[in-house]
Amino acid sequence: MEGQGEDVRLGANKYRERQPIGTAAQSQDAKDYTEPPAAPLLEPGELCSWSFYRAGIAEFVATFLFLYITVLTVMGVAQSPTKCSTVGIQGIAWAFGGMIFALVYCTAGISGGHINPAVTFGLFLARKLSLIRAVFYMIMQCLGAICGAAVVKSFEKSRYERLGGGANTVNAGYSKSSGLGAEIVGTFVLVYTVFSATDAKRNARDSHVPILAPLPIGFAVFLVHLATIPVTGTGINPARSLGAALVYNKEQAWNDQWIFWVGPFIGAALAALYHQIVIRAIPFKSK
Amino acid sequence: MEGQGEDVRLGANKYRERQPIGTAAQSQDAKDYTEPPAAPLLEPGELCSWSFYRAGIAEFVATFLFLYITVLTVMGVAQSPTKCSTVGIQGIAWAFGGMIFALVYCTAGISGGHINPAVTFGLFLARKLSLIRAVFYMIMQCLGAICGAAVVKSFEKSRYERLGGGANTVNAGYSKSSGLGAEIVGTFVLVYTVFSATDAKRNARDSHVPILAPLPIGFAVFLVHLATIPVTGTGINPARSLGAALVYNKEQAWNDQWIFWVGPFIGAALAALYHQIVIRAIPFKSK
Amino acid sequence: MEGQGEDVRLGANKYRERQPIGTAAQSQDAKDYTEPPAAPLLEPGELCSWSFYRAGIAEFVATFLFLYITVLTVMGVAQSPTKCSTVGIQGIAWAFGGMIFALVYCTAGISGGHINPAVTFGLFLARKLSLIRAVFYMIMQCLGAICGAAVVKSFEKSRYERLGGGANTVNAGYSKSSGLGAEIVGTFVLVYTVFSATDAKRNARDSHVPILAPLPIGFAVFLVHLATIPVTGTGINPARSLGAALVYNKEQAWNDQWIFWVGPFIGAALAALYHQIVIRAIPFKSK
Amino acid sequence: MEGQGEDVRLGANKYRERQPIGTAAQSQDAKDYTEPPAAPLLEPGELCSWSFYRAGIAEFVATFLFLYITVLTVMGVAQSPTKCSTVGIQGIAWAFGGMIFALVYCTAGISGGHINPAVTFGLFLARKLSLIRAVFYMIMQCLGAICGAAVVKSFEKSRYERLGGGANTVNAGYSKSSGLGAEIVGTFVLVYTVFSATDAKRNARDSHVPILAPLPIGFAVFLVHLATIPVTGTGINPARSLGAALVYNKEQAWNDQWIFWVGPFIGAALAALYHQIVIRAIPFKSK
Repeated sequence: MEGQGEDVRLGANKYRERQPIGTAAQSQDAKDYTEPPAAPLLEPGELCSWSFYRAGIAEFVATFLFLYITVLTVMGVAQSPTKCSTVGIQGIAWAFGGMIFALVYCTAGISGGHINPAVTFGLFLARKLSLIRAVFYMIMQCLGAICGAAVVKSFEKSRYERLGGGANTVNAGYSKSSGLGAEIVGTFVLVYTVFSATDAKRNARDSHVPILAPLPIGFAVFLVHLATIPVTGTGINPARSLGAALVYNKEQAWNDQWIFWVGPFIGAALAALYHQIVIRAIPFKSK
Repeated sequence: MEGQGEDVRLGANKYRERQPIGTAAQSQDAKDYTEPPAAPLLEPGELCSWSFYRAGIAEFVATFLFLYITVLTVMGVAQSPTKCSTVGIQGIAWAFGGMIFALVYCTAGISGGHINPAVTFGLFLARKLSLIRAVFYMIMQCLGAICGAAVVKSFEKSRYERLGGGANTVNAGYSKSSGLGAEIVGTFVLVYTVFSATDAKRNARDSHVPILAPLPIGFAVFLVHLATIPVTGTGINPARSLGAALVYNKEQAWNDQWIFWVGPFIGAALAALYHQIVIRAIPFKSK
Repeated sequence: MEGQGEDVRLGANKYRERQPIGTAAQSQDAKDYTEPPAAPLLEPGELCSWSFYRAGIAEFVATFLFLYITVLTVMGVAQSPTKCSTVGIQGIAWAFGGMIFALVYCTAGISGGHINPAVTFGLFLARKLSLIRAVFYMIMQCLGAICGAAVVKSFEKSRYERLGGGANTVNAGYSKSSGLGAEIVGTFVLVYTVFSATDAKRNARDSHVPILAPLPIGFAVFLVHLATIPVTGTGINPARSLGAALVYNKEQAWNDQWIFWVGPFIGAALAALYHQIVIRAIPFKSK
Repeated sequence: MEGQGEDVRLGANKYRERQPIGTAAQSQDAKDYTEPPAAPLLEPGELCSWSFYRAGIAEFVATFLFLYITVLTVMGVAQSPTKCSTVGIQGIAWAFGGMIFALVYCTAGISGGHINPAVTFGLFLARKLSLIRAVFYMIMQCLGAICGAAVVKSFEKSRYERLGGGANTVNAGYSKSSGLGAEIVGTFVLVYTVFSATDAKRNARDSHVPILAPLPIGFAVFLVHLATIPVTGTGINPARSLGAALVYNKEQAWNDQWIFWVGPFIGAALAALYHQIVIRAIPFKSK
């Protein structure tokens, strides 16, 4: 059944790559897997389940801690006249990526560990969670992000307003379309990594996939920050961009806000399409 | 029994997140788990066990090495006129986080790998260890920290006194309450990560939880240092703050010392509450 | 049979290292393994398999993302007058190594996760994939690299041409032979790590080998960049060097291009020889 | 038998830490383990085994690559007038630690992955390998180190001699005894981590120990470099110190050379004592 579904377009799947990295060599075909069924769009019963609300609280707390640590790191770098006596721009990238690593590790078993509306959107498109849950997660993520940025502002109010508060804008020297492109490709990198980490088939077969999972997801966020901090300050997370903009609340932070919603959602949709159609060929499966 | 205990407030737990990251997709419900029983407050028999004293020695040695490496790194950065020719503030954050990673890896199977009175306090509140053991660990941690800082001072006495010896104080430009807040949230991040790593239910179900455990704990320490070195120098570990203050022994190090005990203990208590009540709903379990 | 094949030159293999790091101590001899058969040179049936084309697409997308993130990071560092307010040269090394980590994690189960013609060449020499597949992978990698660099150029055209676009050249102060040597040894480090990660015997015996696999491969790339960015800018990946040179397209980028093809291919061949002959003694096996 | 051996001094081992981090919660007492027998001092049969020579070759190649990458990184940082346009001192620390991580990963199953005479000495004291093998490893490590540094010198001869070639000396402002102390404690950190990673009992019980093994060993090297580069340049590896000194071959590199042999060997011996006597209580075991 599986081989058939997989190679439905071109023939039998006899010719797979012989020794994929990280595959337990002896048992690569032994374990079987089943694709979990698609989540229904509306699942009203969820609303009576404690685990549903617990997942929302976990997303709120995780996004709160994410914004708190990262915006505080950004402020620490911004307030110093010479970047050499701070953790530097690289330290900011580590703060974003490292927090995602730690928080995905902590919350993956509770809520799935999204901490990002774009990730929730991508997984919703792939029918990994219901519409109700997706909307609930996004609201909790945005609320958490606003609270996290607000706590940092309460620590250092005047400096926060002077130094930008970690709000995302397209930097001078880049066009809006470059900024949008950077957000699309950056979110693609992140959401494609998330899909690879949650792939049921590969979880059953490749031993590094389920075990390392939070680490490459965190690294993806770190890497996109290394590349696009000079372009847009790096959003790839609409809740993070909204929280920072709302607490900073100056016009320049609002002018580009649409880029940090449209870009990540397009990137997440492309990653969902790529994974579901090209990598897993789900629409072509016989069953 | 489990689903019942879990959803005691709102109904049956039928609606869990469908594909949590890092879960072995095929067996996510197969493995069973049992919550270990709460540790008694007083367990006098422990005092006759070699493994009890061995655990204390392991905590002493680990905290000794922790302070030695981290305070020496801080001194190396402080003594240079330009931070560019040192490992930098980011290098200090790596030293703290990396040491916790390596030491938790080495001592987790011996003493549980706390290396921090706030972690011991949090785990004690969750009844993971007895009161006797908790007090014994804290004493050994503080002794280890004092010895570690003292060895660094013996290497470079005059510079140590001139450069502050890694003692924690609330930096100029921040109020005491901001410093206290930073210690509370920072310790929450660390202790919540520790609770996630030692969660019996998730250890049984999610394959990344028991295996990566020391890594996100170390990263949590690294990330909090990235964010709060500019605020308080980052304590989140009362033994570390006490050791550095006692060896440095100048008035400015003692004035703020209470913040580095009250803050971490509040943060650890909040993390214990959050994990035990919100995430694991232990008080509401039927059994 | 196995011991016999292994020690065919000098006698029985009774004297192995007693406690190799990372070996599950109780079962180190229990699990058996079989060397997978060598891939045929030509396997025309592959051409009718969807998984063959899917693997090529995965290599294209991975190399595209690799060049996009890394060249954008290089541009961000190059355009700033003071390196202190960027992620720095170390940040560039992290971008290259981290992307290889994340992309090997994501694509290892789809295409083997090569993302580098030198890796494909080394694995082809060891007969891990067919000639058709090797050539197909290399073409897709080069196309992906060109597209990735082109997207970065479209973001910032004038700066791209002024600042070199991440193209590899032997830096002033180093001879061509030093540059060639640096590429050979650097690629040896990478490809030897890849061979260690895909070793069927060690996968069956050492538990850290299959699970960590993408991490040391990414670190190998990071480490070679730390060492040889001052020498050649670090190629060790002909697709990366070709993509950057073709999009930059100035004479100085083409003059040294041969070094970034000859060096990596020699290094990969040496690593394949070392692993297959010295470490695994495959030619001397009885069977 | 086991509990008895463990608590031979103070009573029965009923009171273990309840929930060690990284322990598979359900099966922590289920798996059994046996201490491997001590290696004989002389095992002449080894000399007829191909795996014995292969292990020596692997140690040679690993130490060669270790010195090549690290000394080249040191030269790249040293030759630049401003450290900001290099990978920096932190990058040097990453090069040393990261190479140990990658090389332990690659060679652990072949030779045990020592790459350091101090590690070999510590494991020899714990009777993990025979005297013949220990001496053979140390010779191969020193030869590999000399060759690795020599290749770097051949790349940039005049600069190598001007800039010190990565040779270890006690820096101005530190006494010889501070330098010796730094080497002792630094090597203790490394060798204690190695012992924790190869502990047969913990390998059988704690799932993170065998799988992460190369990572904390590499981190230990990284962390010691963060702390002691300002003190001695950080040896903790006599082969590395000898190789750099012999290729640099100036008087100042030879004057302190004894510190980089005596210090690491004392540190390794202390770590072996600590692990075997305090942690594992091997001399007190009944059997």
